[in-house]
Amino acid sequence: MNTPNTLTLGDLSKYLTEQGLANELRGDAGCVITGCNTLDDACDGDITFLNNPKYREKIATTKASAILMQADESLQLEIPQIICAEPYQALTISIEKIYGHRRHPKWGVHELASVAASAKVGANPNIAPSAVVSDDAVVGDNVTLYPGAFVGPGAILGDDVTLYANVTVYDGCTLGNRVTLHSGTVIGQDGLGYAPSGEKWMKIPQIGNVAVEDDVEMGANCAIDRATMGTTRIGHGSKLSDLIAIGHGCDIGPDCMIVAQAGLAGTVTVGRHVIIAGQAGVVGHISIGDNAKVYAQSGVGSSVKAGESVLGTPCTELRNARRQMIAMQKLPAMRIRFREMESELAELRNAVKELTAEAAVSRDGVMRDAVLGDGSP
Amino acid sequence: MNTPNTLTLGDLSKYLTEQGLANELRGDAGCVITGCNTLDDACDGDITFLNNPKYREKIATTKASAILMQADESLQLEIPQIICAEPYQALTISIEKIYGHRRHPKWGVHELASVAASAKVGANPNIAPSAVVSDDAVVGDNVTLYPGAFVGPGAILGDDVTLYANVTVYDGCTLGNRVTLHSGTVIGQDGLGYAPSGEKWMKIPQIGNVAVEDDVEMGANCAIDRATMGTTRIGHGSKLSDLIAIGHGCDIGPDCMIVAQAGLAGTVTVGRHVIIAGQAGVVGHISIGDNAKVYAQSGVGSSVKAGESVLGTPCTELRNARRQMIAMQKLPAMRIRFREMESELAELRNAVKELTAEAAVSRDGVMRDAVLGDGSP
Amino acid sequence: MNTPNTLTLGDLSKYLTEQGLANELRGDAGCVITGCNTLDDACDGDITFLNNPKYREKIATTKASAILMQADESLQLEIPQIICAEPYQALTISIEKIYGHRRHPKWGVHELASVAASAKVGANPNIAPSAVVSDDAVVGDNVTLYPGAFVGPGAILGDDVTLYANVTVYDGCTLGNRVTLHSGTVIGQDGLGYAPSGEKWMKIPQIGNVAVEDDVEMGANCAIDRATMGTTRIGHGSKLSDLIAIGHGCDIGPDCMIVAQAGLAGTVTVGRHVIIAGQAGVVGHISIGDNAKVYAQSGVGSSVKAGESVLGTPCTELRNARRQMIAMQKLPAMRIRFREMESELAELRNAVKELTAEAAVSRDGVMRDAVLGDGSP
Repeated sequence: MNTPNTLTLGDLSKYLTEQGLANELRGDAGCVITGCNTLDDACDGDITFLNNPKYREKIATTKASAILMQADESLQLEIPQIICAEPYQALTISIEKIYGHRRHPKWGVHELASVAASAKVGANPNIAPSAVVSDDAVVGDNVTLYPGAFVGPGAILGDDVTLYANVTVYDGCTLGNRVTLHSGTVIGQDGLGYAPSGEKWMKIPQIGNVAVEDDVEMGANCAIDRATMGTTRIGHGSKLSDLIAIGHGCDIGPDCMIVAQAGLAGTVTVGRHVIIAGQAGVVGHISIGDNAKVYAQSGVGSSVKAGESVLGTPCTELRNARRQMIAMQKLPAMRIRFREMESELAELRNAVKELTAEAAVSRDGVMRDAVLGDGSP
Repeated sequence: MNTPNTLTLGDLSKYLTEQGLANELRGDAGCVITGCNTLDDACDGDITFLNNPKYREKIATTKASAILMQADESLQLEIPQIICAEPYQALTISIEKIYGHRRHPKWGVHELASVAASAKVGANPNIAPSAVVSDDAVVGDNVTLYPGAFVGPGAILGDDVTLYANVTVYDGCTLGNRVTLHSGTVIGQDGLGYAPSGEKWMKIPQIGNVAVEDDVEMGANCAIDRATMGTTRIGHGSKLSDLIAIGHGCDIGPDCMIVAQAGLAGTVTVGRHVIIAGQAGVVGHISIGDNAKVYAQSGVGSSVKAGESVLGTPCTELRNARRQMIAMQKLPAMRIRFREMESELAELRNAVKELTAEAAVSRDGVMRDAVLGDGSP
Repeated sequence: MNTPNTLTLGDLSKYLTEQGLANELRGDAGCVITGCNTLDDACDGDITFLNNPKYREKIATTKASAILMQADESLQLEIPQIICAEPYQALTISIEKIYGHRRHPKWGVHELASVAASAKVGANPNIAPSAVVSDDAVVGDNVTLYPGAFVGPGAILGDDVTLYANVTVYDGCTLGNRVTLHSGTVIGQDGLGYAPSGEKWMKIPQIGNVAVEDDVEMGANCAIDRATMGTTRIGHGSKLSDLIAIGHGCDIGPDCMIVAQAGLAGTVTVGRHVIIAGQAGVVGHISIGDNAKVYAQSGVGSSVKAGESVLGTPCTELRNARRQMIAMQKLPAMRIRFREMESELAELRNAVKELTAEAAVSRDGVMRDAVLGDGSP
């Protein structure tokens, strides 16, 4: 939501080339670009983009001043175009160029912030009113803590960390460099660690922690349990969406993407670059291999191999799962046909019985005929 | 939890009539009503209600002093009654009359609140300790911000807005008049907006916002992503429950109801008065038509037509889905019967084979007989 | 976490015995124990444990100094062992002995905390900066309120309650003794209480509350709706994980365990010691009997009997559900076989038709023969 930087389409094309993105400008290079927007919402001065061919016909009606797209010689376009192989990547670079990343309010260390005397805070702190840094916490350089962000005792934050409003980091947890946590996300609360004693649940002190590695970003209202012992780890570069639950002792590899409302029970090991889609659930004590994909709403009940895609509850390999789903959809019709087959089978059974009986009679007849015939005069 | 207003049953009956709700008082009009409660929990002075006939037998044991219900001549009741066609609506009006809506604490602008110099705040502000209003934010008249509520830079709040404790509204988002957000709900965090680059995820600045229209109410700990570009919209009068995830760029129409833990991926278009039940999930880039209903835990994988009801994962039209579910329940029995049919079919096949063979022999015999017979002396 | 207490293996063995846990020490009683950790993460000085035989082979590679385990005479172990029947319980007691439970920061009543003049606060208050206690609230002895914890007007907290950062307790709700709520959890927001009026939703004032009984612990970012009228109850000793939604008017018995992301709609009655696994959903107005178990991701559409285990959507008794799931997995193969059976059946039908026709011809022949035969000279 920063004030955008203005530039011409020619400048933008040149900038994309400098960033390693080959492109071709078609139309007015002097066209002034003041913003980016979707085909639907763009207005005069905006550059828009076409990535998904599903929205191709919207080019005719968009009010944008220019468009990022792949070459499409079938279209006669008046709108100036930057033609490139990967319009979405071009868009990403354009947005960064025109808007930059969010610029935070500047609080310094606000007088209504609370930083414990024993905490160590790095250079350029930006700590909002009602943010709290506890005893023995260590906070790196250029860290921004929004209002209500809480850094627990002994927690360690790297450089360039951003905690948005009302984020909680419990005691002893660690965040790497450039970690970004959106509002309401909680790192390091106690998980469901109880020893059953009859019908009662005895609390086990949860003496582990959470380590969130470099370049992790999480959405709003996630909940990452601390390990009972040892560490719950979120690997570097992994991206989590909103309302995600990660159980105690999980070990998630680098560059994973986990979509909203997915949940992992305790002690799940996830490899590198795994994608877990929305509302999927994973049982405890299993592993998911590198580059695996878990589709939305799936229930993962056993380990998933590297590279495998799984779907369904309980989940199975993608093509199998789709076959099951199609079969499921045909099931009511199959059930009706099944009942018909039962009747047909019953009829056939009767017909065959009769035929068999008849054949027996006939065989008897033939035999009798034969006998009689033999002995006939 | 306000102190209730006391009135007689006669007064209440009259008040309901004034509000357009025809009713008939049976029993003591002077009976004093001091509260409302359920059949189970009501005690002396309370008026209770019967809406769901399932709970009909509880009338005999309730300790309430009066009841709102439909006429039921089969019952011999001693308890004074207000008979009306819609007891639940009568209850709503009664509760409003007796208790009113929540009366908030009065903080004015508390000395531990933090309001930026460049923010504009309307008449009668009610801003709690540790609530924060950021630079360039605009806050309407009669707005209540509970402790820990955060209004980001440039955010705009209409009149009569209530943000309960620890609500976050990100920079540039807008809330209409009479919007109510319950604790922990987050409006406008960045969604999962990354461009893949090999196994890495390149952050795309999320330059859009969220617009929450007039009269929207949301429960606790919801998470509404800002649009990548343009606006994520929650239409006027829509009501959301708790722990709901709305992806970037969704456009939700007016008067929808979304139940707890439902989730919508990005760029979903939802019509007017759509009901999405608990834990349902909707994939991105589809639309759900006006007055459609998505049943609980459904997985919506493709667009839903106006007026349609869908259920299941992947979801299908309600009656189909129920047929599938019933068929599913019968499937194990069907499978056993299926195996029996296979045996029966094998037996039949053998029987038919034998019969065919026999028939061939017999045909040969007949033919031979015929030949022999013909040429017999 | 806390600085651990050092003790010898002999001392630990003795302590376990004192706590009622029979055990046998094998190996060096003088071995010094300075911590507890998992087989994987343990290092010199740590005691580890083996509970799940799945991890048995890790004993060979662990760097722990000692282990808690059941007797296993098949293993030749050099590592000192404490042999006992219940290693997990031994671990719980060991962790408590060595680490104790979390020691909170000491704030007293911090100068940036906000306690209303009309609130009553018990002995030894520990109230952090930006925590807020509202008018007429009652707070017991030894209560810890972390930063951003909000206690609403008239709310009542028992003794030894801990509210972690950014927890919200709405007006009029009550928490028993020793209740622990983790960050972001919300108690008592208004639920989805609306009376439909055409396409509009009329807000019903939610005049009930929530009662959380003694010894309840909840994870992060849960959302417990207040009752419309009466009370939403969470029974004593029950343990909830993260991101759980409990609808208005639910009545949950004692000693239940509810796992992350499970959700209950309104007015669900849950018995004692019920386990509801992750991401399960329960419709409104039903009951779940004592000691029942609801498996992960299940959809509970009707009441569950005491002691019953249910699974699936819609859920059914566990063995049935598993049979359905297996049948489901076999369904695509069954469908292929089903089509083959249809062809086979068609073939058989034709074969039988022919046989029947032939038999008729043959019968005619026989009859003709018979007739002719009869009248033959």
